[in-house]
Amino acid sequence: MKFSFKNDYSEGCHPKILQALLKSNFEQQAGYGEDEYSLQAKKLIKEKINNPDSEIYLVSGGTQANLIVISSVLRPYQCVISAAPGHILNNETGAIEATGHKVLSIETADGKLKPSDIVPVLESHSNIPHQVMPKLVYISNSTELGTIYLAEELEELSDFCRQNGMYLFMDGARLGHGLTAEISDLTLEKVAELTDIFYLGGTKNGALIGEAIVINNPVLQPDFAFNIKQKGALLAKGRLLGIQFTELMKDDLYFDLARHANHQAMKIKNALKERGVEFLADTYTNQIFPVINNDLIKILSEHFEFFVWKKIDESSSAIRLITSWNTADEAVERFIEIIQKEL
Amino acid sequence: MKFSFKNDYSEGCHPKILQALLKSNFEQQAGYGEDEYSLQAKKLIKEKINNPDSEIYLVSGGTQANLIVISSVLRPYQCVISAAPGHILNNETGAIEATGHKVLSIETADGKLKPSDIVPVLESHSNIPHQVMPKLVYISNSTELGTIYLAEELEELSDFCRQNGMYLFMDGARLGHGLTAEISDLTLEKVAELTDIFYLGGTKNGALIGEAIVINNPVLQPDFAFNIKQKGALLAKGRLLGIQFTELMKDDLYFDLARHANHQAMKIKNALKERGVEFLADTYTNQIFPVINNDLIKILSEHFEFFVWKKIDESSSAIRLITSWNTADEAVERFIEIIQKEL
Amino acid sequence: MKFSFKNDYSEGCHPKILQALLKSNFEQQAGYGEDEYSLQAKKLIKEKINNPDSEIYLVSGGTQANLIVISSVLRPYQCVISAAPGHILNNETGAIEATGHKVLSIETADGKLKPSDIVPVLESHSNIPHQVMPKLVYISNSTELGTIYLAEELEELSDFCRQNGMYLFMDGARLGHGLTAEISDLTLEKVAELTDIFYLGGTKNGALIGEAIVINNPVLQPDFAFNIKQKGALLAKGRLLGIQFTELMKDDLYFDLARHANHQAMKIKNALKERGVEFLADTYTNQIFPVINNDLIKILSEHFEFFVWKKIDESSSAIRLITSWNTADEAVERFIEIIQKEL
Amino acid sequence: MKFSFKNDYSEGCHPKILQALLKSNFEQQAGYGEDEYSLQAKKLIKEKINNPDSEIYLVSGGTQANLIVISSVLRPYQCVISAAPGHILNNETGAIEATGHKVLSIETADGKLKPSDIVPVLESHSNIPHQVMPKLVYISNSTELGTIYLAEELEELSDFCRQNGMYLFMDGARLGHGLTAEISDLTLEKVAELTDIFYLGGTKNGALIGEAIVINNPVLQPDFAFNIKQKGALLAKGRLLGIQFTELMKDDLYFDLARHANHQAMKIKNALKERGVEFLADTYTNQIFPVINNDLIKILSEHFEFFVWKKIDESSSAIRLITSWNTADEAVERFIEIIQKEL
Repeated sequence: MKFSFKNDYSEGCHPKILQALLKSNFEQQAGYGEDEYSLQAKKLIKEKINNPDSEIYLVSGGTQANLIVISSVLRPYQCVISAAPGHILNNETGAIEATGHKVLSIETADGKLKPSDIVPVLESHSNIPHQVMPKLVYISNSTELGTIYLAEELEELSDFCRQNGMYLFMDGARLGHGLTAEISDLTLEKVAELTDIFYLGGTKNGALIGEAIVINNPVLQPDFAFNIKQKGALLAKGRLLGIQFTELMKDDLYFDLARHANHQAMKIKNALKERGVEFLADTYTNQIFPVINNDLIKILSEHFEFFVWKKIDESSSAIRLITSWNTADEAVERFIEIIQKEL
Repeated sequence: MKFSFKNDYSEGCHPKILQALLKSNFEQQAGYGEDEYSLQAKKLIKEKINNPDSEIYLVSGGTQANLIVISSVLRPYQCVISAAPGHILNNETGAIEATGHKVLSIETADGKLKPSDIVPVLESHSNIPHQVMPKLVYISNSTELGTIYLAEELEELSDFCRQNGMYLFMDGARLGHGLTAEISDLTLEKVAELTDIFYLGGTKNGALIGEAIVINNPVLQPDFAFNIKQKGALLAKGRLLGIQFTELMKDDLYFDLARHANHQAMKIKNALKERGVEFLADTYTNQIFPVINNDLIKILSEHFEFFVWKKIDESSSAIRLITSWNTADEAVERFIEIIQKEL
Repeated sequence: MKFSFKNDYSEGCHPKILQALLKSNFEQQAGYGEDEYSLQAKKLIKEKINNPDSEIYLVSGGTQANLIVISSVLRPYQCVISAAPGHILNNETGAIEATGHKVLSIETADGKLKPSDIVPVLESHSNIPHQVMPKLVYISNSTELGTIYLAEELEELSDFCRQNGMYLFMDGARLGHGLTAEISDLTLEKVAELTDIFYLGGTKNGALIGEAIVINNPVLQPDFAFNIKQKGALLAKGRLLGIQFTELMKDDLYFDLARHANHQAMKIKNALKERGVEFLADTYTNQIFPVINNDLIKILSEHFEFFVWKKIDESSSAIRLITSWNTADEAVERFIEIIQKEL
Repeated sequence: MKFSFKNDYSEGCHPKILQALLKSNFEQQAGYGEDEYSLQAKKLIKEKINNPDSEIYLVSGGTQANLIVISSVLRPYQCVISAAPGHILNNETGAIEATGHKVLSIETADGKLKPSDIVPVLESHSNIPHQVMPKLVYISNSTELGTIYLAEELEELSDFCRQNGMYLFMDGARLGHGLTAEISDLTLEKVAELTDIFYLGGTKNGALIGEAIVINNPVLQPDFAFNIKQKGALLAKGRLLGIQFTELMKDDLYFDLARHANHQAMKIKNALKERGVEFLADTYTNQIFPVINNDLIKILSEHFEFFVWKKIDESSSAIRLITSWNTADEAVERFIEIIQKEL
């Protein structure tokens, strides 16, 4: 079978998680997230963000986290702003609109939002009450294009949101990858300070399922659990999520796994750059989008699975390569060998 | 008081409507649209569209008509496609999203949709089931920019929708104006043939309130009345709508009123064109968007009310002028006089 | 044609309203409720409730008012409590649920709610977060059974709601009738003091359409207009509502019309009581539910239209008779004559 | 620690599931339910129900399954009918209403629905279009009270639904327990024949998470996957569900586990009956509701965890005892010993 660079959720989970599931399997635990493991996971996250007053909820997946957060934060007439490649805009089957809220799209080159991108949207939504009220800014870190927010960028965006009475929500499906990118100067603690609400993604970073929603702004905390339950996201066996996040948070396994994924992608990126290959965006995380010619795409396809992302011209396309917590050196080396041979 | 060219709903209604309300006032009539006048109005519309099998519902306003139609037609995972200036995208406070459905926006120069505009949207929504399914094409005639669909254009769009398993819905808030534009070759009967569902707008064409939703496609007819009621649109005194549409449909008053509005706008348009003024779009209905310099805007503002629509450059802007069924010759002449004096 | 006692919206509107529509018809007025008449109507209502800080919105009908108020007040996981005959439970095609909220039903003999009715509902909804949170108490005055709240009853209910962190909402589709019932000791001012939000119904009391939503609790005021627009309830020609409520509020026409309707019903009620007829509920407003035998029902049906409400036994049923602002003495007398002859 | 009879999801999962997770962990599999294990699980279920044309979707939990099924099946104006103890009515935080649909409640002694229970609901919902349209009948098997449907009962209900144009949906959170109850004459194949849609619950029968939705009626099959994704239920690592249901379905492990749970409950039930204890309902599955005096409740509480379900009188209450796939003989014997000693 061909090795797949299609995504970061092709394998099961980190072995430590399976060991912990095995070890705890016959313990009786309380249901619905009241188990000891969920409490322990939340405690570990609060320590890492250095905010004992945050509230944390563990749910199964990213679309679920996004729709619960957004529908919980907004009043019926309020909307969310997202960069055009945003996951909520393109890959969630209208999950946000299904909860009643419009998502305004902003075109950006790198999938990131700056205050200056948002200003015109606010200006063009001033015809009260005939238009939706922008109230929440949705960003991803790392983004859907693999790019990341630097500390200064996030600070500016955070300030802008607060000055304009809007909340800032970070989709952290790949937050580990964003924070461990070699050029990143953000920390988890800083993310918690600068956002009103965010989540730590487990599914794409070594867990079987699981995202940890962290609510930093006390205004958004009351009654959040009701939304979790109403949207079908409250697992009877919450221990499944608690055990996973306990393992991921202990000894910083979460960051080690993400760093590994990034590292493997960077090796491929560097090999490609050495041969003069261009990229759709200049990324430092586990997603890279090299532009290569169709012949090479064909050759690579014989050995690996990946997505052809975007046609560039008649003879070349950008492909998307994603590495994971489990991408072995061998696969990376084999990929690089082919490149070096063919380019 | 200054005469207003701000919109086509500044006055009450055509006097014939008030007379009919007076004449019928003390009659006891059945409630909820079962009154004789509503039945009569529906009969008249069916005759004009030459389709005895259509189903017709009278509601109060355009946003209400749009949200009822769209939420009735679509399944939860389906979405609607609209040109970027579409009323449902910009001026309805997210009414469509509030019923659970995404509205996809397509940039177009003239506010109209062509099959070639829609093809790339369909192509980019093929990742089943991760994306919403485009199922309904929403168009306005006349559009929000005052432009209209010619018969051939509507035929092509209608064919395209049918070939692609999508429904075609025409927002007819200003359908009278669209059909009586001097260059129009469409008829009401043709509109009914080519769309699955549309409405005849009364509010902007001489009624106090009222839009007549016409369902041509039998697939969309069953149980429609439930949606009317559920969305709070079923008036106890349905006679108020029935009387108005009976008057508007009798003797083609509806078209006469729209033709008058168009005619007054064309007089101003021609006067401006004679002086070399450019327009945002080349329109033949009761909305015109001339680009004039700021000094002239200031002078006109002393005598008339209107919206400054869009800044063009430091010295000039497009303004929006709307004429109505009740715009008197005198106001138009006074406006033209000032133009002729100042330009 | 047979005279109808089926409802209180069989005729058009009070002649003063038509005269005011005629008189103002050619004035140009601002759209969307910013016209002088809407402002005047709101001013008059604020004076009558002696609360300059209330906020008032005019909409078309009762179901519309109910769904806008409830969806505006509640967060997604909160629900509303209603007596079992409540209009929102039985006659609005699930309009409230369509906005996402459960309506809890409480069985009561007279259609009214007391604190002791609500206590067990709160007790049985304490399994957080697995159950909806009761947050709004919905009552009608007069109720769907024609009964009314006395001042002391409303005070107790209001106190109870405030002590339990719930809002109190009064559906006033027939508020005029409730307040002018001979045994009523409530005033409009008192209603405004004791409820968080209520509306004054026009449709069932002499208007063509129209309900005036009054928001007394400042917490519920911000951004309410957005909900009006989003639900399709913001009329372009808001003057139609403004003119009607101005006429109804001037010189207390609103209360005179309701008092007339009540008076006509009481004449029939007394005539029936004199002959020993029993009633489903002891009402003092314009709805009465006498229990009569089937032979008499048949005879009355030859001369009048009305609903047979509820089968009581093989030989008798309760019928519903509704009188209106326009029910003439003649019709009432004719009805009484038949009764006196037959009983 | 005290042994818990509080529910059937206190432990992790059956060891075979963990072994299968371990064994497959490093395989790369396709995402979103396209993995080999999900395909295998669906194949096994289709074989067991003997219907190759059914469609099957694996989701995480019961509330999620219920809200996806119901919102997928119904049009906006349609509602669902449930027995009063129904999970969707009491324990899902208004999840169904949050998707826009009313749930009509029917009081029943045993938590089961019969055609004669539903007839009056249909009769009282005939005021078109002022009332919601009942379109789906929701039942649980075993029910929330531990009772079960016999084959004849389900046949009658199924026939009734088909004759009345309604769909029948079985919540099978505890379907294994229902089908393996000693008095049950239903089979999985029969359930699939008689319902339009149902699910096989894993969470309460030995899985970590997981319910398998089975769509038997072809009318309800198209596009179902969109709803799964839109509601946030499509797991990236669908393998987690596929592996579990493959293990449960292989060698009928699913039924063995449920039979064990039932058996343990029956042992307790028989011991209590021998001592003359009464029950809230006569059940044959893993939920029993004995009525015992408060002194005994106190003694039992010192050794076991369980819910006090319902106060019966000043001196006694019904308690709820739930056994599971993992309830050991020892715990059951200890419980019986105490009973035998104290009663």
